[in-house]
Amino acid sequence: MRLVHSVAELRQALAGEDRTALVPTMGNLHAGHIALVERAQTAGCPVVASIFVNPLQFGPGEDLQHYPRTLAADCAQLENAGCDIVFAPDVTEVYPEPQTFQVQPPLADELCGAFRPGHFAGVCTVVLKLFEMVRPRYAVFGKKDYQQLFLLKAMTRQFNLDIELLECETLRAEDDLALSSRNGYLSSAERAEAPRLYAELKRVADALRSGTSNFAELEAASTDRLKQHGWQVDYLSVRSRNTLLPPTAADQEWVVLAAARLGATRLIDNIETGRATAQKPWP
Amino acid sequence: MRLVHSVAELRQALAGEDRTALVPTMGNLHAGHIALVERAQTAGCPVVASIFVNPLQFGPGEDLQHYPRTLAADCAQLENAGCDIVFAPDVTEVYPEPQTFQVQPPLADELCGAFRPGHFAGVCTVVLKLFEMVRPRYAVFGKKDYQQLFLLKAMTRQFNLDIELLECETLRAEDDLALSSRNGYLSSAERAEAPRLYAELKRVADALRSGTSNFAELEAASTDRLKQHGWQVDYLSVRSRNTLLPPTAADQEWVVLAAARLGATRLIDNIETGRATAQKPWP
Repeated sequence: MRLVHSVAELRQALAGEDRTALVPTMGNLHAGHIALVERAQTAGCPVVASIFVNPLQFGPGEDLQHYPRTLAADCAQLENAGCDIVFAPDVTEVYPEPQTFQVQPPLADELCGAFRPGHFAGVCTVVLKLFEMVRPRYAVFGKKDYQQLFLLKAMTRQFNLDIELLECETLRAEDDLALSSRNGYLSSAERAEAPRLYAELKRVADALRSGTSNFAELEAASTDRLKQHGWQVDYLSVRSRNTLLPPTAADQEWVVLAAARLGATRLIDNIETGRATAQKPWP
Repeated sequence: MRLVHSVAELRQALAGEDRTALVPTMGNLHAGHIALVERAQTAGCPVVASIFVNPLQFGPGEDLQHYPRTLAADCAQLENAGCDIVFAPDVTEVYPEPQTFQVQPPLADELCGAFRPGHFAGVCTVVLKLFEMVRPRYAVFGKKDYQQLFLLKAMTRQFNLDIELLECETLRAEDDLALSSRNGYLSSAERAEAPRLYAELKRVADALRSGTSNFAELEAASTDRLKQHGWQVDYLSVRSRNTLLPPTAADQEWVVLAAARLGATRLIDNIETGRATAQKPWP
């Protein structure tokens, strides 16, 4: 495995390769990231993992300063997983001048966008830049960051990027808590409470699947239960999988998404669901 | 020369070519465009000219509807110039879905940006899309659209696009009017008046070169003279060539830019200038 820090080194390392699969990360890797690398390997070309904590996607007061930087441990995990190249640029390599050009994505006021102004513009901008630096044939993203994945798929289409996005299911701990670098911020009491977020999402998803259609009531009941257990809930919302907007009558494929805080730690999670389609009357 | 209308045909036509030079146009070609094609040919690789009247860069009330579409004549000129491929997509090929992702450029409230809200976001967005469709090694732009060229160079750097931008001097008629598709809108009386715009820019540039430093006075005097001859002046402004902002004391390289209307026709032009540097005291 090669570790490179500049675009020039990366281009040299990739010379002669016309296809690569990119796994963009912010480091502090866990099994969820390794699953992304394994998904990338199924594409049958060299795998590049990028490690870059992107200042542009953090708001004032967010955890940019103490976001965990663990490059040596990350590289050990990646090497063990059979990753080919690690691209770990520093901030001046990615932003040698003020980034006055940004990607302006839609849904900026929806879901996490409403609580993290500028976050998705920062994500889309850095991902576009990484795409142009690495020029991969494939790029792999997890479903845990559902709104991010939705936006990156749309950006790839709308900017005509010749890249195929591969998606991965969320990896979970034994108690179903979604794996996340931010889980490391939780106290042991918070860690014990944390699985309730997914449990409530699942409860809403099951109710929808079985035919309940009062979205607002389901959302409010789950939000209340979380609050009773000490959560501050940014949102818990049923959305159309096609638009990420509130479902219309025509939508039968939904995703239930939530962001909520335990103490200072903000966790997000989601679950896809849909109304069970009626059995077709022919075999 | 091949004429293609879709990205799929274009990719097929380019199969095996790893380097091309792109000349993006909106058609209605004149000698200024052909000079861009000739510049592209000096790069020594196949030349792709794109022809696309981009709705995203026209504001309400602008000339999108009657912007001249002259594909057959354009193709004849391009073939004559030795262009290799013409890429002329229709609107649904470029925008198969609503373009909810846009490039947000800086300087949106400066110069033409102040008078054409959303124009440069539309330009940058379509150029990024064309870059991704064609994936050229080089792209050629004229200096007549100076703010556009400035922004596209910055976008290319800041989005890490692996494309070299080549620039061309403005082509002028014998009376120094900058060649432009929009000159065709001018009545014969307006056409006779039109060279005054560049004459005033030149007057400001000459004054600056000879040491005058009261920018505001020069701008106001030239603006007044244009108004006296029936022009409506959007702006006439001395700017730093490095920033396109009003010059600071440190700036010694300037560009004088103007946009002004004769009747319903809006013309733009510019001229680069700088203070003559003092002769160095050694040979």
